[in-house]
Amino acid sequence: MTPATLDDFERLAGEVMAPGPFGYVVGGAGDEVTLGENRAAFHRWRLRPRVLVDVATVETATTLLGTPVAMPVGLAPTARQRLLHPDGEQAVARAASAAGLLQVVSTMSSDSLEAVAAASSGPRWFQLYVHKDRTVTQRLVERAAAAGYGAIVLTADFPVSGRRERELRDGFALDWGGLGNFPDLGGVEFLPLMTALHDQRLAWTDLEWIRRVSGLPLVLKGVLTAEDARLAVEHGCDGVLVSNHGGRQLDRVAASVDALPEVVAAVGGRAEVYLDGGIRRGVDVLTALALGARAVFVGRPQCWALAVGGEAGVMQMLGILRDELVNGMQLLGTPRVADVGPAHVAPGLPSAVSSR
Amino acid sequence: MTPATLDDFERLAGEVMAPGPFGYVVGGAGDEVTLGENRAAFHRWRLRPRVLVDVATVETATTLLGTPVAMPVGLAPTARQRLLHPDGEQAVARAASAAGLLQVVSTMSSDSLEAVAAASSGPRWFQLYVHKDRTVTQRLVERAAAAGYGAIVLTADFPVSGRRERELRDGFALDWGGLGNFPDLGGVEFLPLMTALHDQRLAWTDLEWIRRVSGLPLVLKGVLTAEDARLAVEHGCDGVLVSNHGGRQLDRVAASVDALPEVVAAVGGRAEVYLDGGIRRGVDVLTALALGARAVFVGRPQCWALAVGGEAGVMQMLGILRDELVNGMQLLGTPRVADVGPAHVAPGLPSAVSSR
Amino acid sequence: MTPATLDDFERLAGEVMAPGPFGYVVGGAGDEVTLGENRAAFHRWRLRPRVLVDVATVETATTLLGTPVAMPVGLAPTARQRLLHPDGEQAVARAASAAGLLQVVSTMSSDSLEAVAAASSGPRWFQLYVHKDRTVTQRLVERAAAAGYGAIVLTADFPVSGRRERELRDGFALDWGGLGNFPDLGGVEFLPLMTALHDQRLAWTDLEWIRRVSGLPLVLKGVLTAEDARLAVEHGCDGVLVSNHGGRQLDRVAASVDALPEVVAAVGGRAEVYLDGGIRRGVDVLTALALGARAVFVGRPQCWALAVGGEAGVMQMLGILRDELVNGMQLLGTPRVADVGPAHVAPGLPSAVSSR
Amino acid sequence: MTPATLDDFERLAGEVMAPGPFGYVVGGAGDEVTLGENRAAFHRWRLRPRVLVDVATVETATTLLGTPVAMPVGLAPTARQRLLHPDGEQAVARAASAAGLLQVVSTMSSDSLEAVAAASSGPRWFQLYVHKDRTVTQRLVERAAAAGYGAIVLTADFPVSGRRERELRDGFALDWGGLGNFPDLGGVEFLPLMTALHDQRLAWTDLEWIRRVSGLPLVLKGVLTAEDARLAVEHGCDGVLVSNHGGRQLDRVAASVDALPEVVAAVGGRAEVYLDGGIRRGVDVLTALALGARAVFVGRPQCWALAVGGEAGVMQMLGILRDELVNGMQLLGTPRVADVGPAHVAPGLPSAVSSR
Repeated sequence: MTPATLDDFERLAGEVMAPGPFGYVVGGAGDEVTLGENRAAFHRWRLRPRVLVDVATVETATTLLGTPVAMPVGLAPTARQRLLHPDGEQAVARAASAAGLLQVVSTMSSDSLEAVAAASSGPRWFQLYVHKDRTVTQRLVERAAAAGYGAIVLTADFPVSGRRERELRDGFALDWGGLGNFPDLGGVEFLPLMTALHDQRLAWTDLEWIRRVSGLPLVLKGVLTAEDARLAVEHGCDGVLVSNHGGRQLDRVAASVDALPEVVAAVGGRAEVYLDGGIRRGVDVLTALALGARAVFVGRPQCWALAVGGEAGVMQMLGILRDELVNGMQLLGTPRVADVGPAHVAPGLPSAVSSR
Repeated sequence: MTPATLDDFERLAGEVMAPGPFGYVVGGAGDEVTLGENRAAFHRWRLRPRVLVDVATVETATTLLGTPVAMPVGLAPTARQRLLHPDGEQAVARAASAAGLLQVVSTMSSDSLEAVAAASSGPRWFQLYVHKDRTVTQRLVERAAAAGYGAIVLTADFPVSGRRERELRDGFALDWGGLGNFPDLGGVEFLPLMTALHDQRLAWTDLEWIRRVSGLPLVLKGVLTAEDARLAVEHGCDGVLVSNHGGRQLDRVAASVDALPEVVAAVGGRAEVYLDGGIRRGVDVLTALALGARAVFVGRPQCWALAVGGEAGVMQMLGILRDELVNGMQLLGTPRVADVGPAHVAPGLPSAVSSR
Repeated sequence: MTPATLDDFERLAGEVMAPGPFGYVVGGAGDEVTLGENRAAFHRWRLRPRVLVDVATVETATTLLGTPVAMPVGLAPTARQRLLHPDGEQAVARAASAAGLLQVVSTMSSDSLEAVAAASSGPRWFQLYVHKDRTVTQRLVERAAAAGYGAIVLTADFPVSGRRERELRDGFALDWGGLGNFPDLGGVEFLPLMTALHDQRLAWTDLEWIRRVSGLPLVLKGVLTAEDARLAVEHGCDGVLVSNHGGRQLDRVAASVDALPEVVAAVGGRAEVYLDGGIRRGVDVLTALALGARAVFVGRPQCWALAVGGEAGVMQMLGILRDELVNGMQLLGTPRVADVGPAHVAPGLPSAVSSR
Repeated sequence: MTPATLDDFERLAGEVMAPGPFGYVVGGAGDEVTLGENRAAFHRWRLRPRVLVDVATVETATTLLGTPVAMPVGLAPTARQRLLHPDGEQAVARAASAAGLLQVVSTMSSDSLEAVAAASSGPRWFQLYVHKDRTVTQRLVERAAAAGYGAIVLTADFPVSGRRERELRDGFALDWGGLGNFPDLGGVEFLPLMTALHDQRLAWTDLEWIRRVSGLPLVLKGVLTAEDARLAVEHGCDGVLVSNHGGRQLDRVAASVDALPEVVAAVGGRAEVYLDGGIRRGVDVLTALALGARAVFVGRPQCWALAVGGEAGVMQMLGILRDELVNGMQLLGTPRVADVGPAHVAPGLPSAVSSR
């Protein structure tokens, strides 16, 4: 099968991956209500297309914190990508660079952030888990700044791991392999590092310190409420990433696209707002833009494409998404990214009554 | 099976058509959300029937831009109907004429517009795709006017084709055969013509030119928003056809019947409003009329009936729809088309909670 | 299987009846949206039970137009009940009398209205279809009055038959057998009588004439709108029966219980309001009462029970419904029928989002 | 299978229990609409998590009527637990005590309330069915007070049993075995006792008497409306337990979590409000707390766990729920029970339209 959609990559990945890792990628927390909602919620919104607009030239380019990118779609941070493909994060780096897109590299990458940077010729940000020992964190963000990462994406929704029961139930545990950013695991034991990496005391006041030691713009990832969006802005965040961690942390929270409007309203233009969770279609991207996101990030489709075809797979996946986005912008009557606005979207109606 | 409903024609067409062409006819863009919604949305509306009205005599006749028709149901333009039946558009022309109904003939008809006109003794309009070379377009509309077409139906929602993945996925491509309106394809190559036929720079200001060179009333097809409906009226359109191109262009836009009320309100009686998309039942027609449409158009049922039985099939399909409409008018207590109004329809309630 | 619910009778009837007649009984018009909604709509309402009410003594008795009945549930008129059981309407008459319930006998009964009256010792009303020849109608209502029927139930929603496609599709046609009220069908041909029985010119002004020639109270059956409810009251109706003819006439109209509130509000206590359509449970009866109905009528369950067990079957079905109603009144905290009011019901919430 | 969720215990119980008793435990009244709604309704609410809160220390402890408990989850009263496991209520007592949780013991326990008390070292309340002979009731509550039960939980929604048709249909009847609190059944016959235990004349004015003769705080169980909640407070109740008896009494009443907000508002802080019905997840507990419950009670999961593993099974089930609750509190950003408030919950959106 030649993949024609991002969902096709999921099917293909299910064929090439072992059930355990595949379940790890696709699964979510609890009853997976939020996982399902991330997709279903996009189907609830309706696009409002305008006609007789000149769409002969479509321009998908935009900027993220001032950095030019080829389209308002970035690569979300996901852990240890060598589990998906031997080329790991470097394959993603090459694909993202070739496509002119932003890659966000995980603290828990298989390769070191420097190795990923070496493979990348495009924009990249560094996703941060904060260690209880702040010197560990300080060294990480200093290395990221030195390696040309353009911003820190601080994950806020992971004081502890969510309960993903596919793993609990099956007793499945990934052989995680190495963590590229912590080569000296001879000195630091693995499990304590894992626990220490998610500081349960991380606080709003830490944000200023991270900005200072990194010298980089700061994006807060994992915001789902207006309250936290306001606090993020007040604590100097340059970006707010609306996310429920792909439905992998707390089940029953809102779909990210359903949380987007209240965050956008609370931020009030004082920071850029992004979204991840459930993006599979060009029309999903347009829906998020219309609701006020500046860009979206793709996580699972990236993993599937990487597993299916390495760098080429990721390129192919991004190409499909770009084709869909271009087509969608033409049919929505919005030839430039900035044309997409709140008048291009409206809530859909509840599902119809069922006949017999 | 003797077809008793329009849906029966779909089943029968699925038996007589090859999977590729059948998929082409029934399919939609993307996840086919809008395709499904076009049908489902009608099921959300509830008719409000009045009793003890004299319905001994039912009159389905009405006028469209002043032209008398036997019922407020027309034949939507669909491309190259010889793919469905050797008699193509001429079979539809004969059936429509016999039934006293309006046929809208596609720019991309198998037969030339003159040949279709010759087969027709009833009212007919000409659907227009605008060529980048305006002289090609001018010649088309002049020919249409000369051949007795009573209006131009300008398609506004097709700057580019939507992504219909049944075709992308299967690598299926129709052997399109000839385009009756472009017999000199020796001089014009096929694919460039196809591309050129959908001018991505088509603009509101082109409408006045089309009206002038055709000397005919103008209907704008593909409007889904109040904003565009107002612009259509301001640019002199005589009719506005609420349509999402049968769910074949941009997925996730509203069902046409859900977009109808805002268009009707925006037009405010300054033009006639029509609808296509999802019409399968007499009660669908009544719902659209109650929401303010002057008439509706049927696309896929026409294709299925043509494939199943040629002219006789189309006649049979139209007969069923007329019988359902008459029955519905009697049971709704609206013996004349003009009797159907906003008090005859109300939104239904969301679907019930499910028991175990 | 010993039936424990009214639905059980449907299952049992499906075993003992031939598919054709069974389909005739259970089927509805068009896509059977309204048929399904009649049931589903009850599931949308939520009862609000009160506790610590003295329910040691429960009294289900009430009156209908002044006539005492054992519970607010009557037997709806359904045609030619000998098709279901050799004892036909007389079996129902005996069961209804024994249960102290009101039977509404159809104009199109298998047995003559006099024969049914002879089998009945309880309250009975006569359902009327109005013949185009008013002398036929006048004779019918005079006979009904003479035979002790206590009211005329005029069917208003049947100017023509709805389109029930199970029959259209299968070419199934019931052998209707005789019409007890028209024994001289030697002189009147069958099909013309059928057509003439449903006068498509029946008007509001006919109501006064029916009241005069019958000398009986008048109930209008088939009302679904506030507008018609007001007209019914203004034209002197004593009762209004909210009904969509069991989903057998116009598809896509509201479930009868969803139409009930607007009718109750429009009537404003000036007439009694009843409901049929979808009653299968004691809690359905309570929901209708809470929304303002004085009583409800059961159609299909009566037919199934008659087919399954004749008089005994109908008795058993009514016994189950009475047991459910008594239990429901105790648990709702409403020991008398008049205790049930608007505070005992509230709309439910839309169905939940689905998890994966 | 090692159970990872409370639902897993249902599956396991289905394997170890005979179909009759299992059906008795899992079944509900009527069409089981309310039974299903108790679960589905939780899925309709969305949690609103806050980030960057110090959750290094989570404290699930709270108090119920002043009594400290380890978490805001108690063991609901369910009848004759020896049917589930030979150790019956004493197994639950030991598990609850070990977990520091409140056990509510049923009037209809297999073991006497004194025997259960002897097995318990933790907080316990006594659930009361009121006998028609008030001296029987007085002796029961005096014994409960003497045996150290800390409150009376008066069941208000059981004037008669609901109709649970699994039993009606199958003719299934439990061999109930003995009632520990009525050892002298030699003198009192069984069925009359059962009937007499549910006084259908129980009234608000009885509450004061129960409080007086027991000398204990009073919780009213089975309240679903604001009206009854206000009456409960006015009649001196210390707690109100929002419950529909697990969907086993009147079908079509609201899910308990959907009734919770109106009860909380009506009580207005004048009493503690609890909930049972549909609790299967830590996020269910959090949803109820956010909507104003002080604690929740688990019924069926307790039964399943008891059947599957006796005391150890109940311990395991409570451990899972505690782990989920702790995880949920960390991810919700509410390290103490009192932190959870109305801003942590919002209604979800209706289910999405379905694509084809």
